[in-house]
Amino acid sequence: MFNDASTEEIELAMNAAWTAFHAYRKLPLKRRADFMRAIAIELENCGDTLIQTAMTETNLPEARLRGEKARTIFQLNSYAAACEKGEWLGVSIDTAVRDKVPPKPDIRKMLVPVGPVVVFGASNFPFAYSTAGGDTACAFAAGCPVIVKAHPAHIQTSQMVAEAILIAADKCQMPKGIFAHIHGASFETGKTLVTHLYTKAVGFTGSYGGGKQLFDWGNQRKEPIPVFAEMGSVNPVFLLPEKLKTSATEIAQQYAGSITLGVGQFCTNPGLIIGIESEALQLFIQELGAAIQKVIPAPMLHPGIAAAYTKNKANALQQEAVQLVAASAIAVKENEGTPTVASATGETFLNNPVLHQEVFGPYSLVIRCKDMAEMIEVAQQLEGQLTSTLMATDTDITSNEVLVEAVKNICGRFILNSVPTGVEVCLSMHHGGPFPACTDSRFTSVGADGIKRFARPIAFQNWGNQLLPDELKNENPLAIWRTVNNELTKAVV
Amino acid sequence: MFNDASTEEIELAMNAAWTAFHAYRKLPLKRRADFMRAIAIELENCGDTLIQTAMTETNLPEARLRGEKARTIFQLNSYAAACEKGEWLGVSIDTAVRDKVPPKPDIRKMLVPVGPVVVFGASNFPFAYSTAGGDTACAFAAGCPVIVKAHPAHIQTSQMVAEAILIAADKCQMPKGIFAHIHGASFETGKTLVTHLYTKAVGFTGSYGGGKQLFDWGNQRKEPIPVFAEMGSVNPVFLLPEKLKTSATEIAQQYAGSITLGVGQFCTNPGLIIGIESEALQLFIQELGAAIQKVIPAPMLHPGIAAAYTKNKANALQQEAVQLVAASAIAVKENEGTPTVASATGETFLNNPVLHQEVFGPYSLVIRCKDMAEMIEVAQQLEGQLTSTLMATDTDITSNEVLVEAVKNICGRFILNSVPTGVEVCLSMHHGGPFPACTDSRFTSVGADGIKRFARPIAFQNWGNQLLPDELKNENPLAIWRTVNNELTKAVV
Repeated sequence: MFNDASTEEIELAMNAAWTAFHAYRKLPLKRRADFMRAIAIELENCGDTLIQTAMTETNLPEARLRGEKARTIFQLNSYAAACEKGEWLGVSIDTAVRDKVPPKPDIRKMLVPVGPVVVFGASNFPFAYSTAGGDTACAFAAGCPVIVKAHPAHIQTSQMVAEAILIAADKCQMPKGIFAHIHGASFETGKTLVTHLYTKAVGFTGSYGGGKQLFDWGNQRKEPIPVFAEMGSVNPVFLLPEKLKTSATEIAQQYAGSITLGVGQFCTNPGLIIGIESEALQLFIQELGAAIQKVIPAPMLHPGIAAAYTKNKANALQQEAVQLVAASAIAVKENEGTPTVASATGETFLNNPVLHQEVFGPYSLVIRCKDMAEMIEVAQQLEGQLTSTLMATDTDITSNEVLVEAVKNICGRFILNSVPTGVEVCLSMHHGGPFPACTDSRFTSVGADGIKRFARPIAFQNWGNQLLPDELKNENPLAIWRTVNNELTKAVV
Repeated sequence: MFNDASTEEIELAMNAAWTAFHAYRKLPLKRRADFMRAIAIELENCGDTLIQTAMTETNLPEARLRGEKARTIFQLNSYAAACEKGEWLGVSIDTAVRDKVPPKPDIRKMLVPVGPVVVFGASNFPFAYSTAGGDTACAFAAGCPVIVKAHPAHIQTSQMVAEAILIAADKCQMPKGIFAHIHGASFETGKTLVTHLYTKAVGFTGSYGGGKQLFDWGNQRKEPIPVFAEMGSVNPVFLLPEKLKTSATEIAQQYAGSITLGVGQFCTNPGLIIGIESEALQLFIQELGAAIQKVIPAPMLHPGIAAAYTKNKANALQQEAVQLVAASAIAVKENEGTPTVASATGETFLNNPVLHQEVFGPYSLVIRCKDMAEMIEVAQQLEGQLTSTLMATDTDITSNEVLVEAVKNICGRFILNSVPTGVEVCLSMHHGGPFPACTDSRFTSVGADGIKRFARPIAFQNWGNQLLPDELKNENPLAIWRTVNNELTKAVV
């Protein structure tokens, strides 16, 4: 329906983005924020057609898509507010001390945009992590033009959103080239974009294979660039003994819901549940199995994802000493994924790396450890995770410090007595985590701090007040929080 | 004198660091800060022997080394103060909103250390960017154990500083393994350290070749790790027309000093000076040449650096259409570098990438552009730089916006009417810049914000107040600035 962009089309888009960068980065924060709010309005204006197109392309239900669209609009508006507020700029001012030996010069620091950002849309979030999603919003807030590579699984949806962005850009008199929308199902399109001279950063949400490839391309360039890839994880859940003893049934119910929410197609889906062999754990497994059997299968995002789920799950279940606990008793239709839970001992898990891999879909593996020492070993052996969860009483926590610290050390978000699915959009959210959950654990892809992925500090030394950007002027005309001679203040200098 | 560390010794050090990490990261900020201050005291206690050892090993003069030692002590103390103050933790709290649909959970975010950090000492800063230098101080502040690879050019100095750190660690009852000192002149020692499973970040100051190699090793690991390499640059200085017209002689004097300061062995040495053909530029070149002729040569850090300077300078001077302006008229002794200035047209420079490369030492190339358009082209073609400098009147700045923006876009520190040599240690300093000045332009290696290189955020979701770290507790027992529901405050929650 849309042809892959030619090399010439990509070249044109990148050149336009580079030109736009020089104009856009000079615009005041308020102009950037107004542009983001205008995109939110245009998205709203797309109305039901957009939802229906997305339903057709992704198999996601209407309510979910309406919720996701609202979330996308919230992201744009809340990141716009953060952009305008300017705290993310990390402004710091050290005034001159002329009688120091040698004299201390006046130095003032703030973040500036890195340059054009290439964003790869996610298959599982056609709105919130695609064309006008979190990465795009963060890049615009940072002062960077955006080139979106549309996800082939929802190109019509992506095209409609892209048109909304272009209308907003036009209404806000943004520089031409501030946004481009590139179609391309091929490997080459992605590579051309990531390796282009004018691309200065990349945002990606998706599989490990895809993200790692972009990361490698980014690093192998003559001028390496930061590639922020959020690549998902198995999101381990640790059931601590005292908590499990009192709440096995309740946790089983809660997790049957979390495992199968959105047909398991969330990067925060709990793919691994770890307990210690006991009657309570048996009860938990039994109740979880019973609940999973009742879950009604639903279509997955696209045939490729459904096929991969079936294949990866089969592979996991075929591993030695892995037992099927239960699967949904309801027959699946085309493109649907059967909710499934399996189980294995701690020893089996520790000795088989295949079981550490994510099975993207409504699947979870329960690990039965022989004791706390083995549970700690499992935690220590796990790779980096977006989230880790403890189901625990206060006593469980205070009396198992080694486990708690080991679990904390591998994750970006550390949850207590809840489920990892559901990622709140707020400043305190961290959606990232040690590799392979993402390629740079120091940054988040959810929340306004995600803006910092696409900005770098610059220090102005010895500039006269009248020549400085407003953010750094003595008068503090933007009334932002700044660190002046090591003290946070909104005061004038 | 010291043998290269064996694989077994490195393995022991890394295992000890990993064990220490689990204890050290739980220590309160105050304990970390006390440890850093104790190192400063032990460095002071090393007394004159340390200075004399460094003089023998580096050829640097006593006054410079005393100054650098004082700077190193200042770094340790000021980063300790910043560590304790806790603003760098970026604490953010979003309290629960139970009646939201779905309910908003309580989420609280702060930075936590990444793990053991390998630090490579710099040849040109035996104290401030070596064993107990900026990278080590930042890593300790972040909560990370440190493994220093001693620079082969000053191993005795490094050994003495390492012993001071170990005494401080002992006095402060730090976990065993918090610090290790590894000798090794070979390629393999560095590679073993960077690729070790327990190494979680790398700090480096030195050449492009060395830094890029570490960066590649870091990225090629199964679990890639951040490698922060500060690799120097040519630090272009742009002479704008109006300023040059009135101040050619004065600027020439100022820059003769900056080019030859410390025998040109600073990463911020001005290696490129760009002006527009005019009588004023001719006067500037003539005066700079006259001043350079009078500079007394001095010994460089070690024979390797002196040999490289002679070779790289000869190569630059042999390039087509490059003219020697002047060299020191005083004969050089062994290991000394002759202060030298050359000149070429803008066209010559634009067409010869060799002239864009740093010649580490007391050398600078003056570029004579035919007009402002060509000066802009030079700025646009330059690679990433630690610093860029404008020598300009206010009118020069306001009437040459395209140039100013182009120059700003390539640098980490943007200086007006001063010299790039001399890097103030303060929070507002940014010592970094786009590649190839350093491997990640989003971080600094000077100033307390350098701590953030070695830390990552973690979000606690749904934790009870009593179980949270002190930094995140409602009562704010550490009295740090925190963003609570999007507002900066020191108040209790």
